[in-house]
Amino acid sequence: MKQAILTPQDKDFPRWYQDVITKAELAENGPVRGTMVIRPYAYRIWELLQAELDRRIKAAGAENAYFPLFIPEEFLKREAEHVEGFSPELAVVTRAGGKQLEEPVVVRPTSETIINHYFSKWVQSHRDLPLLINQWGNAVRWEMRPRLFLRTTEFLWQEGHTAHATEQDAHQYALNIFHNVYADTMIHIIGVPILRGRKTDDERFAGATITWTCEGMMRDGKALQMGTSHELGQNFAKAFNTQYVNVEGERDYVWQSSWGVSTRAVGGLIMVHGDDNGLRLPPALAPYQVVILLVRDDNGAGERAAQLADQLSASGHRVHFDNRTDVSFGRRATNWELKGAPLRVEVGPRELAEDRVTVVRRDTSEKQPVAINALGSHIKNTLVDIQRNLLAEATKRRDENTAEVKTVAEAAEAALTGFARIPWATIRGEGVEVLHKTSVTVRCLQRADGSLPDSPDDSDLVATVGRAY
Amino acid sequence: MKQAILTPQDKDFPRWYQDVITKAELAENGPVRGTMVIRPYAYRIWELLQAELDRRIKAAGAENAYFPLFIPEEFLKREAEHVEGFSPELAVVTRAGGKQLEEPVVVRPTSETIINHYFSKWVQSHRDLPLLINQWGNAVRWEMRPRLFLRTTEFLWQEGHTAHATEQDAHQYALNIFHNVYADTMIHIIGVPILRGRKTDDERFAGATITWTCEGMMRDGKALQMGTSHELGQNFAKAFNTQYVNVEGERDYVWQSSWGVSTRAVGGLIMVHGDDNGLRLPPALAPYQVVILLVRDDNGAGERAAQLADQLSASGHRVHFDNRTDVSFGRRATNWELKGAPLRVEVGPRELAEDRVTVVRRDTSEKQPVAINALGSHIKNTLVDIQRNLLAEATKRRDENTAEVKTVAEAAEAALTGFARIPWATIRGEGVEVLHKTSVTVRCLQRADGSLPDSPDDSDLVATVGRAY
Repeated sequence: MKQAILTPQDKDFPRWYQDVITKAELAENGPVRGTMVIRPYAYRIWELLQAELDRRIKAAGAENAYFPLFIPEEFLKREAEHVEGFSPELAVVTRAGGKQLEEPVVVRPTSETIINHYFSKWVQSHRDLPLLINQWGNAVRWEMRPRLFLRTTEFLWQEGHTAHATEQDAHQYALNIFHNVYADTMIHIIGVPILRGRKTDDERFAGATITWTCEGMMRDGKALQMGTSHELGQNFAKAFNTQYVNVEGERDYVWQSSWGVSTRAVGGLIMVHGDDNGLRLPPALAPYQVVILLVRDDNGAGERAAQLADQLSASGHRVHFDNRTDVSFGRRATNWELKGAPLRVEVGPRELAEDRVTVVRRDTSEKQPVAINALGSHIKNTLVDIQRNLLAEATKRRDENTAEVKTVAEAAEAALTGFARIPWATIRGEGVEVLHKTSVTVRCLQRADGSLPDSPDDSDLVATVGRAY
Repeated sequence: MKQAILTPQDKDFPRWYQDVITKAELAENGPVRGTMVIRPYAYRIWELLQAELDRRIKAAGAENAYFPLFIPEEFLKREAEHVEGFSPELAVVTRAGGKQLEEPVVVRPTSETIINHYFSKWVQSHRDLPLLINQWGNAVRWEMRPRLFLRTTEFLWQEGHTAHATEQDAHQYALNIFHNVYADTMIHIIGVPILRGRKTDDERFAGATITWTCEGMMRDGKALQMGTSHELGQNFAKAFNTQYVNVEGERDYVWQSSWGVSTRAVGGLIMVHGDDNGLRLPPALAPYQVVILLVRDDNGAGERAAQLADQLSASGHRVHFDNRTDVSFGRRATNWELKGAPLRVEVGPRELAEDRVTVVRRDTSEKQPVAINALGSHIKNTLVDIQRNLLAEATKRRDENTAEVKTVAEAAEAALTGFARIPWATIRGEGVEVLHKTSVTVRCLQRADGSLPDSPDDSDLVATVGRAY
C-alpha cells in the first residue's frame, strides 16, 4: 500500500498545507520571522498568474510604474483611518548609511500615500484624468500570525492606484478591475468560484469608503480573501491635496480607487484544489502542463519520448521530459502527482511497440491508453477539460458547503464546515459580535439576487459568514 | 526658430540628462533622498528590457525565485570583504510591529548571503548541481551621490546566483551569462557597443574572486558599468557552509557565480543615444515604435489614420495613435521627438488624397513620403535599420573617442573626452593612483587582442581607463 507523504486533509488541514508546501518545494520560511522564500516551482506559478493579471490590467488601460519602497513616516499619518489601520504593522528604517536617520522611513505596507504625493503634482486638469497606474512589487506588514503565502511579513503583489474626475467614474473603474481583471482571472485561470461582494464597514480597507472583495472557499470550508478593489472617495485626495480643474474651471479633489492581488492567491490555489496526494494545478498556471514520464529506456523509448515532448512543446504546451530512469518509476509518478502536473504521459517500450502511451489525469486520476497519432488532440482537449473540471469541482464543493440560515446560532453551526448565508438585518450589530467570538466573520454582503449592494443599508442584503484565513 | 527645450549636451551634459528625464516624463526623485519614481514611459522601457533579459536567462537554464528583502544583520558579517564593502551603504530596520527588534534586520543590498543560507540546505549531492537561480526585485544601497537611474538608494534589478561542482563550471557559467545574456542584450537590444573585460582587484565586487564587466561609453565620453558577472570562488560557500558530496563521495564547498543588471541600464540607454532634441530609443525597447500623428481630421483622415494604426499593430509593431488635433501639430511632433519614438508617421488629408503619408526617422531626422500600400514593409525595414544604425553610431563614437596611449599623462588627457587604452604594466600601481586623483579609473582589463584575461598578471594586458558614472 502506498504510504501517505502528506498529512491527510481531513485529519489536519493546516498541517496538510504545510506538508504540501514543503514536499512540493513551493516555499520556506525566511530567516526573519514571517518572511518567505518562494522556490522556483511556486515562483513560476506566480509568474504565470502575474502575466494573466498584467494582460488584463493593461487591457483596462492602466500603465505600470514604480514608486519607492521607502515612505516618510509623516505621509502615513495624513489619513487618519489609514495610519490607525497600518501603524501596528509597520517596519521602520531608523539607521542608514552608517547614521541614525533624522526622519525615520517606513517600508511601504501599501502605496496610497506616496502615490498621492505624486498624483498631486501630475494632475492639474480634467484632461489629466483618469490617471490609471499599476505597480508590481513587494510590501511589508509585520504579521503576528504569519503563514506561508497567506500572511507573510513581506509579500509580492500588484497594487493599482487611480484618480478620476467623478465618484461615478472611480466607482465604475473599481468595479471594472473587480469583475474583468480579478474575478475573471480567479474563476477562469485559478479555477476558484469566488464570491463577489461588499465588505462591511468594519472590514473595509483602512482609508477606503467601499471595499469590494473576492472570497474563495478553501477545501476545509474556510474563506480566503483573494483580492480586493477599493473606492477611496476623496480621502487620500484631501490628505495629499490632489486637485484638478474641472470642465467648469473649478478646482475639485479627485476621486480614487486602489486594488491589489498578492502571492496570497497562490495559497488559495493550493487550498482550493489540492488533495491528499498533493497539488492539483489548473493547466493555465501549471509550470508543466504535461510531464512525459519515460518508464524504461529500452528499444529507443527514450528517443521516442523526447520526440513526443518536443512535439507537444511545439504545439504550445508547457512540457517537461522526465527521463531520470535511475529513479524508480513509482517514485517519479508520485512526485509529479505531488507537484500537481495536470497530465502525465507514461511512455514505455511495451506500449510504444503498440504505438500508444498511457495518459493520466491528475484531477480525476483517470488512466487511459492513447494512440500516439491521437495524442496531440487528446492532450489539448483534456487540458481544457481539466481547467473546466477543477472549477466545476470547486463550485460544487462551495455550493454544498454553503447553508441558507435564519438565525445566528444556525450561522455559527454552518460556519464550522463552510459558509452561511443569512439576512444582513438579522446579524447586523449584535449578531456580528456574537459570531466574532467563535472567529466567524462577515466575508461579504450581496443583494438577495447575488448582485452588488449600493449601500450597506440596502434592505434586501444577505451576509455570507464564515471562518477565514 | 525652434526653441531648445533641453540644455544642449555640449553645454552641460549632466543638466541635459536631468532635463530629458524630466521633460520626457521618465522619472522623478522620491521623497526619501536618493529614491526614485519610475514613471510609466520609462517603466515600459524597463519591462521590455526585463523581458529580453529574462528570456535569455531562462535559455541559460536559470529559474526565477524570490528571497526575502530582510536579511539578519549577522548574515552580512560572515564574509569579511562583503561586509566591508556593503556596511557603509546599509539601511537597517530596527523597529517593527510597534516594537524595537531584538535583532535588527538589513534591507538587502544584494542577496548572496541570504541565498547561500538556503543553498546550504538545498545542496547535498553533485546531483543537485548546478543550482541556477535568478531573482527579479529591488535592492537598497544608501547612496551618497544619488543620480536618477544611475545610482539610486533603491534600484530594481535581476540578480543571479548559482552553485557549481567545479571552479571551471562556475567560470564557464559566469561567462555564459556575461556573453550570451548581458553582452548580447546590451549590444543587440540596447544598442550599446559595450567593452567586455575584467575588473582590477581594486574594483571587483566585494566578496568575488573575479568580476567581469560590461562598460559602455556615454555621449560625453564617460563610462557606465552596465552589468557585471562575478565568480565568487568558494568565499560564500565557506561562510555559509554550502557543501556537496562529489562523485568520489567526498564533501567539498560549491563554486559560485552571481550577476546583475539593474535599472541603471535605462540611464545608459538615455546617455548613449539621446541628443539635443531628446531621447532616441532603439526599436527593441521603444514603448511605441511607431507613432501615427494625425495632422488634421479632414476628409476622413482620422478614420484612415486609425486604420493604419490598427494595421501596423496587427503586424506586431507597438503603435500609438496620436489624434489630439486640439494640440498643435508642431508641439506634438516635438513631444514625440523628445520621447524618442523611432518612427513618426504623419497622416494628413492632403497627402492621403495622393495615397501617401510622411515617415520621419528619429535617429537620422530623415523625412520621406511613402505610398500607403508600401507602408507596412517600409516600417518593418526601417525599424530594423534604426536598431542597426543606433548601434553603428554609438560604435563609431566610442571608437573615435578611444585613444591608444603610452603614458599616464596621455591617458589622463584622453580620459577628458573618452577612453584611453594603455598597457596595464605601465599604470599598475602608481599610475592608477595618479589617474585616480583626476577621477580617472581603470574600467577593465583585456588581452591585447581584446579577449578576456585569465589573470590580472597576464603579461600582455591592456587597461581601458576613463571617467565613470
